[in-house]
Amino acid sequence: MTYCLAIRLNDGIVFASDSRTNAGVDHVSCYSKMHTFSTKPDRFFVLLSAGNLATSQGVVNALQRDIDNTKAECSLNNVEHVFDAAHYVGALNQRVQIEHHEALAKSRISPEASFILGGQLRGQPHEIYLIYPQGNYICASPSTPFLQIGETKYGKPILDRIISPTVSLADGARCALVSLDSTIRSNISVGPPIELSVYKTNEYALAQRLIFDTDSTFFAQTQQCWGDGLRQVFNTLPRFDWET
Amino acid sequence: MTYCLAIRLNDGIVFASDSRTNAGVDHVSCYSKMHTFSTKPDRFFVLLSAGNLATSQGVVNALQRDIDNTKAECSLNNVEHVFDAAHYVGALNQRVQIEHHEALAKSRISPEASFILGGQLRGQPHEIYLIYPQGNYICASPSTPFLQIGETKYGKPILDRIISPTVSLADGARCALVSLDSTIRSNISVGPPIELSVYKTNEYALAQRLIFDTDSTFFAQTQQCWGDGLRQVFNTLPRFDWET
Repeated sequence: MTYCLAIRLNDGIVFASDSRTNAGVDHVSCYSKMHTFSTKPDRFFVLLSAGNLATSQGVVNALQRDIDNTKAECSLNNVEHVFDAAHYVGALNQRVQIEHHEALAKSRISPEASFILGGQLRGQPHEIYLIYPQGNYICASPSTPFLQIGETKYGKPILDRIISPTVSLADGARCALVSLDSTIRSNISVGPPIELSVYKTNEYALAQRLIFDTDSTFFAQTQQCWGDGLRQVFNTLPRFDWET
Repeated sequence: MTYCLAIRLNDGIVFASDSRTNAGVDHVSCYSKMHTFSTKPDRFFVLLSAGNLATSQGVVNALQRDIDNTKAECSLNNVEHVFDAAHYVGALNQRVQIEHHEALAKSRISPEASFILGGQLRGQPHEIYLIYPQGNYICASPSTPFLQIGETKYGKPILDRIISPTVSLADGARCALVSLDSTIRSNISVGPPIELSVYKTNEYALAQRLIFDTDSTFFAQTQQCWGDGLRQVFNTLPRFDWET
C-alpha cells in the first residue's frame, strides 16, 4: 500500500509520501512515490502516485518522454492549465491500464493507480488535483484543502483538525509528517523513508525537499514530541463522575 | 457505516459504539449497536454489531429467542466458554445471511454483518471476540488488546498509542471516546449518540453504561479538551531548520 497527500495552502503546496511498495509480504521494497519533472521555467509540477507500481511508472515514463519530445501533441511543457495536466495524466493512466488490463485480469491483479498532481503555471493559481484510476479528477477547495491517496484514513483526523488554507507552509509540512507517522504506526504496508516537499507559490521550483529515514533525528524528535504530548493531553481529559 | 470497538484490559472490558445506520443518504437513522442479554448470574455478554442491520437484528433476535427457550440446544445460557458463544454467534450470523442471500444478491445488497462479543463465565477469564461475516472468529491478545468493526481506521492511531492491558478501565473508556470522536469528525457515516459501557471482571453485570448525545456536556468537554490539547502539542513540535 501507500500513503501520499498534498495540502494546498494560501502560501503554496505541501507534498508528502511514504516509500513502501509491496506485492504480498514476500516482495516488500522501497520506491519513491514523489515525482518531479524538468519543465519550462514558467511552470512546475509534482506528481504523487499510489496503486499498481508498473502503472505508476508507466505514467511517469510517458510524462517524461512527452516532455523530452518537443513535438509531442500534449506534454507537461505545453498544457495551459493545471487541470489540463490533470486531464492528460488521467488519459495516460487509462492508456497504461488498458494496455495491461487483459493480462493482469488473468492473474486477478488490478492495474489501477491513483495520482495527486500539484503545480502552478505562471499567472495562474497553484492547484492540486486527485486523479482517479478511471482517469477523472477533482481539485481541492478552500473547505477541503488537502487530497490523499492510498491508505488515507489513519492520517485524516489530524489533517481535519489542523489544516485550513491560512496555515503556514511549515505547519502544513509538520502536519503532513504527523499524518504520515500516524499511518505508519497503524498500518505496516506504509513505511519510511518519508518524502516531504514544499512548494512556495510563484517560485516554479521546490523550496524544500526533505527525506526522513528511520535514522532521522528530526523525524524521531517529532515522533517523540507528538507521542509524549498526546499522552499528556490524554491525561488531562475530564474524569467520569464514577471515578474515585 | 458504523464504528464499534471493545478493549480487553486486565481489570475488565470497555465497549463503545456509535448509533448511525444508513442505506444511502436518504435513509439515515439511529439504532443502538450495543446489545446486552439477561442471562444466568454466572455469565455476562455484550454484543456489538456492524454491517447489514437486518442481519444484525436477526442474530440478536435469535440469541434472545434461544435464551428464552430453556430447551434450546445452544444458547448464551448454556455455552461453556466465551469462545463457544463466539462460535454460536458466528453460526447464527451465517444462518441469517444464507436465508436472505439470494434475494439480496438480486438487489446487489450485501447481507454481511460483523460482531464483537465480549463477556465472562464464572471461573474463566473475561474475553472479547471479533466474529467475521463468514462466521469464523478471533480473540484479542495482550499485544492486541482491542478489536474494532465497521469504520475502524480513523480511530485506530489513538488506540495504538494509548492502549495496553494495564490501562485502567476509566482510561480505556476515555480512549474509546476519543477514538469515536476522531472517527465521527472524519467520517459522516459514523454518528452520535455514542454508547460506552464498562464491565469489571468477575461482576457479571455492567459497571457503567453511558450514552453521549450531541448535547452531552461531558462529551463536549472531552472533545474540546482533546482538540485544544492536540493544537497545543502541535505548536510545540520541532521547527524545521529552514524556518525563520
